[in-house]
Amino acid sequence: MRLSRYFLPVLKETPAEAQIASHRYMLRAGMIKQAAAGIYSWLPLGWRVLKRIEDIVHQEQQRAGHIPMLMPTIQSADLWRESGRYDAYGPEMLRITDRHDRDMLFGPTNEEMITDIFRSHVSSYRDLPLTLYHIQWKFRDEVRPRFGVMRGREFYMKDGYNFDVDRDAALHAYNRHMVTYLRSYERMGLKAIPMRADSGPIGGDNTHEFLLLADTGESEVFYDSAILDLELGDRAIDFDSVEQCQAICDEWTAPYARTDETHDPALFDQVPEDRRRQSRGIEVGQIFYFGTKYSEAMGARVTNKDGEVVPVHMGSHGIGVSRLVGAIIEANHDDKGIIWPEQVTPFHCGIVNLRQGDGDCDAACERIEAALIEKGLDPLYDDRDTRAGGKFATMDLIGLPWRITVGPRGLQNGVVELTSRRTGESEEMSIDAAIDRIGQIYAAA
Amino acid sequence: MRLSRYFLPVLKETPAEAQIASHRYMLRAGMIKQAAAGIYSWLPLGWRVLKRIEDIVHQEQQRAGHIPMLMPTIQSADLWRESGRYDAYGPEMLRITDRHDRDMLFGPTNEEMITDIFRSHVSSYRDLPLTLYHIQWKFRDEVRPRFGVMRGREFYMKDGYNFDVDRDAALHAYNRHMVTYLRSYERMGLKAIPMRADSGPIGGDNTHEFLLLADTGESEVFYDSAILDLELGDRAIDFDSVEQCQAICDEWTAPYARTDETHDPALFDQVPEDRRRQSRGIEVGQIFYFGTKYSEAMGARVTNKDGEVVPVHMGSHGIGVSRLVGAIIEANHDDKGIIWPEQVTPFHCGIVNLRQGDGDCDAACERIEAALIEKGLDPLYDDRDTRAGGKFATMDLIGLPWRITVGPRGLQNGVVELTSRRTGESEEMSIDAAIDRIGQIYAAA
Repeated sequence: MRLSRYFLPVLKETPAEAQIASHRYMLRAGMIKQAAAGIYSWLPLGWRVLKRIEDIVHQEQQRAGHIPMLMPTIQSADLWRESGRYDAYGPEMLRITDRHDRDMLFGPTNEEMITDIFRSHVSSYRDLPLTLYHIQWKFRDEVRPRFGVMRGREFYMKDGYNFDVDRDAALHAYNRHMVTYLRSYERMGLKAIPMRADSGPIGGDNTHEFLLLADTGESEVFYDSAILDLELGDRAIDFDSVEQCQAICDEWTAPYARTDETHDPALFDQVPEDRRRQSRGIEVGQIFYFGTKYSEAMGARVTNKDGEVVPVHMGSHGIGVSRLVGAIIEANHDDKGIIWPEQVTPFHCGIVNLRQGDGDCDAACERIEAALIEKGLDPLYDDRDTRAGGKFATMDLIGLPWRITVGPRGLQNGVVELTSRRTGESEEMSIDAAIDRIGQIYAAA
Repeated sequence: MRLSRYFLPVLKETPAEAQIASHRYMLRAGMIKQAAAGIYSWLPLGWRVLKRIEDIVHQEQQRAGHIPMLMPTIQSADLWRESGRYDAYGPEMLRITDRHDRDMLFGPTNEEMITDIFRSHVSSYRDLPLTLYHIQWKFRDEVRPRFGVMRGREFYMKDGYNFDVDRDAALHAYNRHMVTYLRSYERMGLKAIPMRADSGPIGGDNTHEFLLLADTGESEVFYDSAILDLELGDRAIDFDSVEQCQAICDEWTAPYARTDETHDPALFDQVPEDRRRQSRGIEVGQIFYFGTKYSEAMGARVTNKDGEVVPVHMGSHGIGVSRLVGAIIEANHDDKGIIWPEQVTPFHCGIVNLRQGDGDCDAACERIEAALIEKGLDPLYDDRDTRAGGKFATMDLIGLPWRITVGPRGLQNGVVELTSRRTGESEEMSIDAAIDRIGQIYAAA
């Protein structure tokens, strides 16, 4: 992409309303624009990050055999009356009346709707296990929306629902989801720690939240630092294997890790003192096993192997896709701007032309751009006829992990400069070497 | 995908409420489920088609330099008061009051919001031309939603907006959009005819609708059959070339083609009689040039080359992504079910195992499945232990363009059967030949 033809409205000044880094930088980097309190337009740069996160979530869900679909944003109130949540949900539910005076709502979650789909079509254990999920816009009418997309009203979420014949099968689905979530976060370049949680309005006994460590997190968290050393890497996982999924969950839930809601000081004291950590965290996902809460209320039953008709066992599982954009910035920034992990960066590499209009510089930049595109990468080439200082400041602000700087002096010596946004270190090398290096970095990412 | 692990709830009976083929088949093929009047869940098979159409739209928009972003579904009423449309829009607008009693609405279109984004960030002709677009859920509170996703209330639409310094530049954007739309429909395997149209509530003088011929279309259309012979094919298009875009538009708008709203019988009589056609059509897109209607009302101005501050010239352009799923079925079905064009089919090839559990049959099916996946294709393997008749009926209903049938007798002779859904013709060939043939078909599609 050529910056001269892109829409990247960066702001020089820090918007007064933004209290945390991610909100400030998303506004300043031209990623979002507020449309109403807690409601944002995703400008082109923000949209790219949102899509990359969405893609990772889709890939990891489908790898585990979970089936994508899409439920609508607007729901009928009737289903929520069946489950009893229409009255219980409170003022955070955006209630709507259509032109025929029917009670509707903008869905904050989809347990009722998916249970209705299930009961309409499935009646036998032979069609189980089944996990359906979607990634859709949700609405939660927060009384005080704040922190940009971190606590917005309209938000983009992956929510998935498993249906199993009994508790054991459903607990395997729970574990399977934990594994898919761990891998999703890891692929985004994040350390998200599963922590035992409260179930809140979803219900159920088994639930874990996934928290990203960040100073601005809303939750207080207590954990054993040993958990930070765990990595899934690219280990092969058979998602049908009860033992394998259980073993991974055991590995990740063995070290102490809890939020203030479930913190147990006596247990925490058993962690070796040099590994005890207290910090703040941002919730970026949660998984639940709630058994037959919705299936009993709504009559979602299947025939089991013994011919008995039993309520199906369910769980639900959510990843905050739009929230993650903010959370990743909270965990990856400095005083110049954002520092994207390679896995979710909106563009893979910036190209800065120090002398736009100079034949050699222009040709070198175009050659680098074309070579990176050839490798399947998306470079952002700052081809504007503006000063170098401004170009560097923009690249630092928008946080592309790598930048290639092309100037007349370097070209005379046959070199360009490759700069890491994270370390700030620059290295001179030939054009081909820079292209190869970027290719290698992303092949490994 | 293995059918035994998928969620494909096909219905044997035709739902009474469905009046047209696409609605019937989308319900019967397990593509959608009604959630409320005019509001649908997209079940897994439907979701796949929706995504394929969305992908084509994205690719063709970005090929022309149009920039993707995403605006929210919920909008503040204030912007619509600025343009004067809040009161003008009527009861089709879903009006919402939030917990703080602010007037909101579920966006039916985004002219106001995009104009607000533009005026906040752009003030010079140097940042033009600019075309921003998004693909987002919209809501139109139809008094009588009907025909499934063809005339639903919640619908998925690509809407794009161009900003140009003057009328000439904006008319080039208009032409450029016509070209991108023609190519998008062609890539979906469709003949969509641009027809001069009325502008309705969007406003403006220049507007074309794109209509797909289908007996169940809501519009009466009159056209010169010569237009059906036109093809863009893979001709290279320079979207910056005013002449080239104009020439393509001239080519497609020269033959007479109008809806009943703009029909001119005297002009139509000048078409050679053997080429005069009267038919019905489904609107699947519309483009508008409306000049300064919104920019004047909302103060979206830029400085032009002469230093004058002028209102920006705009147009908007929509493709009904969810409606297209239905429209494609209206144009592509028979009495057994859907017949997907290769370009948008949910799965590229069905694999039917006539004797599930037979070692040779299972091995052959698995080999075909693996080979097709290796080619980057998505096969749907019916691995259920059910009767052949039911398997064939399901494949015909869901409309995959190609089917490979594997049975014990054929395998003894070293052959499987390759069947075209469109022609019904079957051909026996070796497994490798069938795999190659499918590969060739999709390499060309």
